[in-house]
Amino acid sequence: MSIKMSVAALAEFLDKTFPQVAHDFVIERVTDDGITVRLKVADRHLRPGGTVSGPTMFALADVSIYLAILSRIGPQELAVTTNASIDFMRKPDANTDLIAQCSLLKLGRLLAVGDVLIYSQDKTQPVARASMTYALPVDSNRSGAVPERDAEPTPQD
Amino acid sequence: MSIKMSVAALAEFLDKTFPQVAHDFVIERVTDDGITVRLKVADRHLRPGGTVSGPTMFALADVSIYLAILSRIGPQELAVTTNASIDFMRKPDANTDLIAQCSLLKLGRLLAVGDVLIYSQDKTQPVARASMTYALPVDSNRSGAVPERDAEPTPQD
Amino acid sequence: MSIKMSVAALAEFLDKTFPQVAHDFVIERVTDDGITVRLKVADRHLRPGGTVSGPTMFALADVSIYLAILSRIGPQELAVTTNASIDFMRKPDANTDLIAQCSLLKLGRLLAVGDVLIYSQDKTQPVARASMTYALPVDSNRSGAVPERDAEPTPQD
Amino acid sequence: MSIKMSVAALAEFLDKTFPQVAHDFVIERVTDDGITVRLKVADRHLRPGGTVSGPTMFALADVSIYLAILSRIGPQELAVTTNASIDFMRKPDANTDLIAQCSLLKLGRLLAVGDVLIYSQDKTQPVARASMTYALPVDSNRSGAVPERDAEPTPQD
Repeated sequence: MSIKMSVAALAEFLDKTFPQVAHDFVIERVTDDGITVRLKVADRHLRPGGTVSGPTMFALADVSIYLAILSRIGPQELAVTTNASIDFMRKPDANTDLIAQCSLLKLGRLLAVGDVLIYSQDKTQPVARASMTYALPVDSNRSGAVPERDAEPTPQD
Repeated sequence: MSIKMSVAALAEFLDKTFPQVAHDFVIERVTDDGITVRLKVADRHLRPGGTVSGPTMFALADVSIYLAILSRIGPQELAVTTNASIDFMRKPDANTDLIAQCSLLKLGRLLAVGDVLIYSQDKTQPVARASMTYALPVDSNRSGAVPERDAEPTPQD
Repeated sequence: MSIKMSVAALAEFLDKTFPQVAHDFVIERVTDDGITVRLKVADRHLRPGGTVSGPTMFALADVSIYLAILSRIGPQELAVTTNASIDFMRKPDANTDLIAQCSLLKLGRLLAVGDVLIYSQDKTQPVARASMTYALPVDSNRSGAVPERDAEPTPQD
Repeated sequence: MSIKMSVAALAEFLDKTFPQVAHDFVIERVTDDGITVRLKVADRHLRPGGTVSGPTMFALADVSIYLAILSRIGPQELAVTTNASIDFMRKPDANTDLIAQCSLLKLGRLLAVGDVLIYSQDKTQPVARASMTYALPVDSNRSGAVPERDAEPTPQD
């Protein structure tokens, strides 16, 4: 899995493609088997008691796996999440950024699978664990032989 | 599973406890085995191309199961999601509200499990499916014998 | 989703293709949106205390979704499970068959998703809930334009 | 998480408690954060084409997380799986043992969460990934203050 997009290229892509949420995230580094992404925790991410909300942690896991995939296949807006499972294990620290460490476990022709551990910054025990599957657009640059298909997660008539 | 909170009581609880997000949701009805909740889709929920974002659908599933549980056990801020799995199956219609139909499958003393199908309004094929487990606070009014415990999803030292 | 295989055709396919396990299962009926399958509980399925083992319930969910898909697309040995989530909610009754009620939620060109509720026979509260995704072989009879591909869940070199 | 059961003690417990399946598994080692378990692949685990079946990989993940928990809390027959998610990513090699590397991510008072990667022996890319939650019996030796409870995954009347 050679690296096709740097931290800077990924950040520019995120800014352009997801302007509503890009400012929430900092891409810390592209790693040997994935990526590390920080969520800049702000008031809008919190629940009563200062906990980061579940949907916010889901969004962090989702964007991390997406960026890990793009770092290996190049910019592809059409990769879509088809499945996710997430375990919420501990209460995140209040007013503390979250760090997602993502490993790409599979990068197939049609499906990719990534795994994420989320930590409150500077802590060693994860607050959450997630794994997600992405359906990949079939791009002639990657696979040659297969004609373009519709994105899978659309209805079949 | 007798009903302890009406639509009006749940809506008031949601407004008071989750003021950041309560205005996104309309509780349509408490059903025989769960609840129906509508997401009023707005620009902030969208992704490029007019699709509702994954984290938004996750949030809809999460709040639906939470409210279904509260409708049967009464107002409990401390119920927390411990696990979720979600399948994204079709692209939601643009500019169309989403309807979550939630069934409570288990309401145990410590754990509750709910199942959700999410539809674009007036469509018959679901755009997503989710199931989630909640850890319930042990409340002396419900269980009598067991002393209060810390919310489970906190670290054990 | 028109029906392409009857109960008898599915049973014959199961016997021929999975002779090791086919005798564990009875296909009860093909339903409007899926299938109903019975597990004939025997000693080899049990855990201490008379409970049916988790892997046995997983196998029942898996075969049910597989057969529900085949009932709509015809005999396809190459459909493979790519993802599963399962909630074990109650202890099954001892010495009682299990009934799996499967609904097909999506039957796409490349991916299918099914949902299963498992009951101890004659009970109304489910012992388990599962959902699974299958990757489908691209068959020229179904899709015409796309050349055959390798089954997806194989390594990409 | 100090270690309370050695490889030998775990193997003896497995033999005594799960005699139907204990001979399928070899406990390779108790690791810093979990355990490594080998599945001795035999004909009864296979599907047509020489693939190890999904339920067999599920069983390997399940027993690995169970043993990882017991290695830290001591022998507890009553720990039960409440939730599992599994991704099948590659086809296992024919006639090759499977190795499960399990990490315990959380060992709480009531719930434990473990993560597993499964490899064909001597391969570096995982064939499957699983995570599971176990509900733990409340044992006075571990928690002191809380009276014994029924195992959670039984129906609430």
